[in-house]
Amino acid sequence: MTKEAPKTMSTIDPAAAQSQFEFRARFCETDLMGIVHHGNYFQYFEMGRVDWLRKRGVTYAEWAARGTHLPVVEVRSRYRAPARFDDLLVVTTTLVELRSHSLRFAYLLHRDKTLLAEGETRLACIDANQKLIPFTGELRAVLTSAETRAEIA
Amino acid sequence: MTKEAPKTMSTIDPAAAQSQFEFRARFCETDLMGIVHHGNYFQYFEMGRVDWLRKRGVTYAEWAARGTHLPVVEVRSRYRAPARFDDLLVVTTTLVELRSHSLRFAYLLHRDKTLLAEGETRLACIDANQKLIPFTGELRAVLTSAETRAEIA
Amino acid sequence: MTKEAPKTMSTIDPAAAQSQFEFRARFCETDLMGIVHHGNYFQYFEMGRVDWLRKRGVTYAEWAARGTHLPVVEVRSRYRAPARFDDLLVVTTTLVELRSHSLRFAYLLHRDKTLLAEGETRLACIDANQKLIPFTGELRAVLTSAETRAEIA
Amino acid sequence: MTKEAPKTMSTIDPAAAQSQFEFRARFCETDLMGIVHHGNYFQYFEMGRVDWLRKRGVTYAEWAARGTHLPVVEVRSRYRAPARFDDLLVVTTTLVELRSHSLRFAYLLHRDKTLLAEGETRLACIDANQKLIPFTGELRAVLTSAETRAEIA
Repeated sequence: MTKEAPKTMSTIDPAAAQSQFEFRARFCETDLMGIVHHGNYFQYFEMGRVDWLRKRGVTYAEWAARGTHLPVVEVRSRYRAPARFDDLLVVTTTLVELRSHSLRFAYLLHRDKTLLAEGETRLACIDANQKLIPFTGELRAVLTSAETRAEIA
Repeated sequence: MTKEAPKTMSTIDPAAAQSQFEFRARFCETDLMGIVHHGNYFQYFEMGRVDWLRKRGVTYAEWAARGTHLPVVEVRSRYRAPARFDDLLVVTTTLVELRSHSLRFAYLLHRDKTLLAEGETRLACIDANQKLIPFTGELRAVLTSAETRAEIA
Repeated sequence: MTKEAPKTMSTIDPAAAQSQFEFRARFCETDLMGIVHHGNYFQYFEMGRVDWLRKRGVTYAEWAARGTHLPVVEVRSRYRAPARFDDLLVVTTTLVELRSHSLRFAYLLHRDKTLLAEGETRLACIDANQKLIPFTGELRAVLTSAETRAEIA
Repeated sequence: MTKEAPKTMSTIDPAAAQSQFEFRARFCETDLMGIVHHGNYFQYFEMGRVDWLRKRGVTYAEWAARGTHLPVVEVRSRYRAPARFDDLLVVTTTLVELRSHSLRFAYLLHRDKTLLAEGETRLACIDANQKLIPFTGELRAVLTSAETRAEIA
């Protein structure tokens, strides 16, 4: 991802910054090669990210309703081994960078001990008018907190 | 589809009510059986519908921006033969029913002379508050017109 | 769905023929109307179906690997109320018809007590050469059984 | 993308290595932010890549049928401005690297003069047994050629 001089960078506690989400690969997510299509991994990373936020008390839907959006501005992924239909997959999501107006999550996708893919996404913080805004202190506190409650589903 | 007593039913000229849209099946639309996944056909029907409206001077995006939405309330599809990656497909879209608050499109999907699928969708007419509204006279005139200009792409 | 004279119809125990699967609507499954796009419901029904089979000891992936496929030949869905991002959804899948060479599942999609959609899919039984084959006695026994084990994920 | 010491690197003629493909953003590709979901851009890049090959006489479907696959092993994308429903988009695909066992395409996505996104994908060359194989001389000749015929659709 792009290297920029950090400004108002928050300190991230590595132990607190990680969450895991388990799910199964859908039939419709495979392609004619018999494996999960590479584009679908960004749906998996997104699920991991939404779950990561939920586990810190943030319902992204409510956040969006209040006018704060986190559009994805940059992504990358490296594919190590194919995922297949019905595989029980685990996405490990880690907040790796928290700047004043953007943040960066890293992802690992595993089937049991096998690493299938790794990726990163950078998200900007914008308001309802698509204007870049800084994370408020409240949001920053949430983003640097550990999991606060068990996930419901 | 559900049979209801017609009210304020518009007369549709069969010759005018039909348009065709050509496209290729995408790699990512196939599944591990090597054929286009059945759920993707509703994307194809939607492309046919959007193109049908465009060929009658309606940009659905503008329509939506002005507060009129046409949510899909009922669909069906029957699959006759598989579509495969890179197939050059033609969706034939026909307006088959125009009621006061809803309309119905029928679709045929062909690869050359081979019928691959047929389907139908019923759409309601609602405003920005999700309230059912009747089609205005202006919209009704558009919907019962023939193609008015060549499609750009 | 198409009405045909039943042949070698199996008796289905309604109490045994039903299973439920819970999941959350993904961000990427919504469209610009802010609701889950209608085409994605067939992914939800498919998840319900795959889970239904798993709960009766059938791993569809293994079944497919052994050369038996269940392609979808007909679908329909009726949308009652919109599903939204992050909604906790439950799909109730019921085997409603088991013929010699095809079967039919019905689906109900709920958010809490609210019915969001209902649908049906008819699937044919084919071999690796796309030839229609009858369900074996073994498969028929599985399909008419109740849930045999708890779902893992 | 990963920097590796080049081996058996082919010389690419920049003027010959580029093709353009035009299409419209689908309704179902948008999300609740009203813009095309970031994951779908990899479908756009894939369409560009398939079209790029077709314009050099390669039908990827036939290539795949003969046992040569080009799985995506690494991707990245940077989003500059949102794409919206019904936008007429142009993806410019350029072969930027041709190694012995892999290649790399770069993509630019425009709406008129506006750059919406840029991306890259690295693809490996494998056989039907998922084994890494070198590009044959025949394939290498195709990949370094200019557009040879007009695209049909």
